[in-house]
Amino acid sequence: MSTAVASEAAARPLNVVVFVGSLRKGSYNAAIARALPALAPEGLTFTILEGLGDLPHYDADLQAQGFPPKVLELAQAVSAADAVAFVTPEYNYSIPGFLKNAIDWLSRVSPAPFAGKPALIQSASMGVLGGVRAQYHLRQILVFLDAIPLNKPEVIIGAVHSKIDAAGELTDQPTRDFIATQLTNFAAFIRRLQP
Amino acid sequence: MSTAVASEAAARPLNVVVFVGSLRKGSYNAAIARALPALAPEGLTFTILEGLGDLPHYDADLQAQGFPPKVLELAQAVSAADAVAFVTPEYNYSIPGFLKNAIDWLSRVSPAPFAGKPALIQSASMGVLGGVRAQYHLRQILVFLDAIPLNKPEVIIGAVHSKIDAAGELTDQPTRDFIATQLTNFAAFIRRLQP
Amino acid sequence: MSTAVASEAAARPLNVVVFVGSLRKGSYNAAIARALPALAPEGLTFTILEGLGDLPHYDADLQAQGFPPKVLELAQAVSAADAVAFVTPEYNYSIPGFLKNAIDWLSRVSPAPFAGKPALIQSASMGVLGGVRAQYHLRQILVFLDAIPLNKPEVIIGAVHSKIDAAGELTDQPTRDFIATQLTNFAAFIRRLQP
Amino acid sequence: MSTAVASEAAARPLNVVVFVGSLRKGSYNAAIARALPALAPEGLTFTILEGLGDLPHYDADLQAQGFPPKVLELAQAVSAADAVAFVTPEYNYSIPGFLKNAIDWLSRVSPAPFAGKPALIQSASMGVLGGVRAQYHLRQILVFLDAIPLNKPEVIIGAVHSKIDAAGELTDQPTRDFIATQLTNFAAFIRRLQP
Repeated sequence: MSTAVASEAAARPLNVVVFVGSLRKGSYNAAIARALPALAPEGLTFTILEGLGDLPHYDADLQAQGFPPKVLELAQAVSAADAVAFVTPEYNYSIPGFLKNAIDWLSRVSPAPFAGKPALIQSASMGVLGGVRAQYHLRQILVFLDAIPLNKPEVIIGAVHSKIDAAGELTDQPTRDFIATQLTNFAAFIRRLQP
Repeated sequence: MSTAVASEAAARPLNVVVFVGSLRKGSYNAAIARALPALAPEGLTFTILEGLGDLPHYDADLQAQGFPPKVLELAQAVSAADAVAFVTPEYNYSIPGFLKNAIDWLSRVSPAPFAGKPALIQSASMGVLGGVRAQYHLRQILVFLDAIPLNKPEVIIGAVHSKIDAAGELTDQPTRDFIATQLTNFAAFIRRLQP
Repeated sequence: MSTAVASEAAARPLNVVVFVGSLRKGSYNAAIARALPALAPEGLTFTILEGLGDLPHYDADLQAQGFPPKVLELAQAVSAADAVAFVTPEYNYSIPGFLKNAIDWLSRVSPAPFAGKPALIQSASMGVLGGVRAQYHLRQILVFLDAIPLNKPEVIIGAVHSKIDAAGELTDQPTRDFIATQLTNFAAFIRRLQP
Repeated sequence: MSTAVASEAAARPLNVVVFVGSLRKGSYNAAIARALPALAPEGLTFTILEGLGDLPHYDADLQAQGFPPKVLELAQAVSAADAVAFVTPEYNYSIPGFLKNAIDWLSRVSPAPFAGKPALIQSASMGVLGGVRAQYHLRQILVFLDAIPLNKPEVIIGAVHSKIDAAGELTDQPTRDFIATQLTNFAAFIRRLQP
């Protein structure tokens, strides 16, 4: 009986909200984010968060007038999700400012939207280093947010422009396979962390 | 003769442009930034950069339409300065998103505004740790920008709310003295680095 | 029935092996490590790892001759533990070299001793910043090791010399209470992560 | 006249002491360190520091008995040098423990051997990322030491095993050229920083 219950629990779909760290229409990182559903194990779904670029710059005086509705909407989406993912380029050896700004807003909302959430990190760049420096800055930020990032494997995609076709599809098979492995691990990690 | 020339050169005023990492009107970090001129050795002047909060979120598609005039104006101010300073709170164990966004824009301008500039870092927070975690993220960012940060002393101001009065003046004498020491070192560092 | 099983499982004692990051006999960090059992919730036990200072410097040529017995003994202790803890000073804005050296050796042993282990971090220093800079370096190292560090609360003990008496006992009650809270959270975190 | 004086000053040879971050006899990083003299501009000489692996683990109790002679010898070599260089692998996403241990010892010697020294960083690994994560940990450590690292270009050598021949010679011409560029910049940086 308890086995059956466990199986049903395991079968519950897990939803991951995705922060994309680039506002560019043809963003490579957005293309990777769009590829996630096709690469995920059964039961893992993704919702790309829209409108990160519509938030004002964080300002405590603004917050004092009430959170912008978009902040509360994003906070609600994160709170309701089983996990969060970040797919981001590296800007100036860290994460993009607008992505940090979204985090800065969300970190002020109570109850804390990220607290206890499993987190997935991917980065991509045209260079060989694949945005790796941004990942450890993001991990330090996640400590404060109390999110719990998956360790392995780390998805660090170099030469990303050669791995995505003109239609914005991630076509590089080794990259697809590697991401699929990460997502399988992530699904297990989310289930392991569930209350 | 050459001695005289050297002395004159030494006497040339050095201008430092200041990035304040908070948009709040009553910002403690802004209060510290305003205190710098009074604490600086002769010949060191400061210009607080205004309008960092007016920049749009960095977006390569926007850049492709031409840099926003404010970005170019800020880039020009940085390029023309002898040095740069950052006075910033720590948000989520890193620098504030809007400050990173300003850097993200400026880093795209050519010639690189920060390249070779001596840089000063100060952080303040209400907690005991004084925003220290943000400083090393900023230092990593400065590597890419090719700015050269002063090492010592590091100005890390904890319990900042107890050190600034209701009029927004930095009144804590030990903090004032410590900043004055840093600024004296910074002036020597700027001169040491001058071409 | 399954409830009873769960209760018994919850009651199984959890053992934590502790890395102390100082070799000094009168080490403040060692004093904190010794205080852990008295501050822990029921069922959480601690084993301080001895002999970290007896390891040779890591050298792949040495490894090729076979791991030093002490390395294998430590690896076995870590593998057998339910979790790991690090109680360490900060040296030069990072973790002490000899502690890193122990990690460097252990990271070469297969199967990976740290993989999947919950990890606890504490730092202490005489200064106000409490060794905080070392904590994020250690967290980055733990990513490679695939250990899973607790996020909150972070135990960062400043002015540690005023909190430990001449007999090497941690006497500061707020610090004791704060550590007790962390240990309670850690016990729950270990259980949450158990397979 | 002053031009002539300047030329003579510029012509003074600059000596750089080199820390190699691996004890392995066939170390790739040691091979790179040995290649530096041939790649350097005229007037830049290198002394590889020997015996880093002979230092005991740092222990304040040992220090209290007097610094090991080897520590004082290394400190003297660093103090006498015009600059320092680090050529190191990445172990566990940071610098090797024994290298950190050497730094921990040297950081205790007075006057501070590293204070004000220009510093050069290179890393190499068999993987594609070239040890890049170690570089920013080292840079944070250098803040405390008050050394001044060159920013650009950053030498991050991936797939190093394919770039060094069986005789331990760095044969990859693009890597040689890139290092030569870095060393030219470093020579200028040292001269720029000279008192």
